[in-house]
Amino acid sequence: MAVREQIRVGGRSARIQSAVHQAVRDLSATTPRDELTVPQIAAEAGVTPSTIYRRWGDLGALLADVAVERLRPIAEPDDTGSLQTDLKAFVDQYAEEMSSPVGRALMRDVFASAESFPVQCAGFTCNHLATIAARAKARGEQPFDVDEVIDHVMAPIIYHILYDDREITPAYCHALLARLLSLPQPR
Amino acid sequence: MAVREQIRVGGRSARIQSAVHQAVRDLSATTPRDELTVPQIAAEAGVTPSTIYRRWGDLGALLADVAVERLRPIAEPDDTGSLQTDLKAFVDQYAEEMSSPVGRALMRDVFASAESFPVQCAGFTCNHLATIAARAKARGEQPFDVDEVIDHVMAPIIYHILYDDREITPAYCHALLARLLSLPQPR
Repeated sequence: MAVREQIRVGGRSARIQSAVHQAVRDLSATTPRDELTVPQIAAEAGVTPSTIYRRWGDLGALLADVAVERLRPIAEPDDTGSLQTDLKAFVDQYAEEMSSPVGRALMRDVFASAESFPVQCAGFTCNHLATIAARAKARGEQPFDVDEVIDHVMAPIIYHILYDDREITPAYCHALLARLLSLPQPR
Repeated sequence: MAVREQIRVGGRSARIQSAVHQAVRDLSATTPRDELTVPQIAAEAGVTPSTIYRRWGDLGALLADVAVERLRPIAEPDDTGSLQTDLKAFVDQYAEEMSSPVGRALMRDVFASAESFPVQCAGFTCNHLATIAARAKARGEQPFDVDEVIDHVMAPIIYHILYDDREITPAYCHALLARLLSLPQPR
C-alpha cells in the first residue's frame, strides 16, 4: 500500500476513497461477498472501474482496505481502574467482535490479501495493549509484556476462530488471561 | 462439505475430483491466483463448468478443497525417540511449511471459504499431536496436553504468519515450546 500512503489527505482523492468505501459497505449489506464486482462498486460509488483498479489494484485489496478501516479502533481501550480489569475488558470485546459473523467476514477479507493489510490489524491490537500496559505502569501496577499477551491470549482466540474448532466462550478467554497473569511477569 | 462426503470413492466421481484438483494445481503454477476461473479450470480438467459448480458450489470452495488436500499429512509425524524431540521436529516442520509462500497461499485459500475446510486442517494438527502424545505415553514419558500445545505453540505461530508482524524463526518456535514444557504438565 505504498501508493496509497502517498495520496494527499483531503480533496478529490479523499472523496473518492470515502465514496468507494461507502459503496462497498452498502453493497455488502445486500450482495453476497462472492458476487461483488469492481464495475458494480464503481457504479454505486459514481466513479469509473479504472479509478478503482488504479488506486487499489484489485477487488481483494479494496475489500481488505475496507475491512481494515472497519477494524480500526475508534477509541482508546476503556480505563476500568486496574490492569486486570482493563485486560479482561479488552479481551472480552476483542473475542466477541472477532468471533461475530461480521468479524469473521472482515478477517477473511483482511487475510485474503497478500498485502500489508494484516500487519495494520496486528498493529491495532498491539497499540491497545501498549496503552493498557502504560496505564498499568502509571498506576504503579506490576507490568505485563505485550508480546506475551498477544502470543498466549489473542493468538489462541484468533486460531480457534479461524480454524472454527472450538467455541470462543468468555470462560475460555478468561482462563487464557488468568493462566498468563499467574506466570512470573517481567519487571 | 456434507455433499462431498457422500460421494462414493472410486469410479467416475473420483476421476472427476482427481482431474479437477490436478487442473487447479497445474493452472496455479502459471496463473495468478486472482485470475483463475471456473470455466478455465473446467476446460483444463476436461469437464463442464456446471460439473464444478454442482460439486463444489463455487470457485472459493474448490480452491479451499484443493488446499486442504495439499495440507493433508501424507505420513505420521517422525518418531525421533522422545517427546521433546518429536514435538520439536513437528513444530519446526509446521512452522517452515506454513510460513513458506506456498503454505501462506494455501492458508489464504482455506480461510477464504466459510465452509468446513478450516476445521479439517485443525484436525490434521490435532491428530499429529495426539500421535506424538500417545507415543510419549507408551514410552512412559511425562505426557502433555494437546490443547495446550495448540494454544501456546501452534496458535502464536499461525497468528504471526497471518498477521505478518514477526518473522517465524526456529529460535522463536523453540522458545514457545520450551516455555510450555517448563510449566507444570497435566498427569
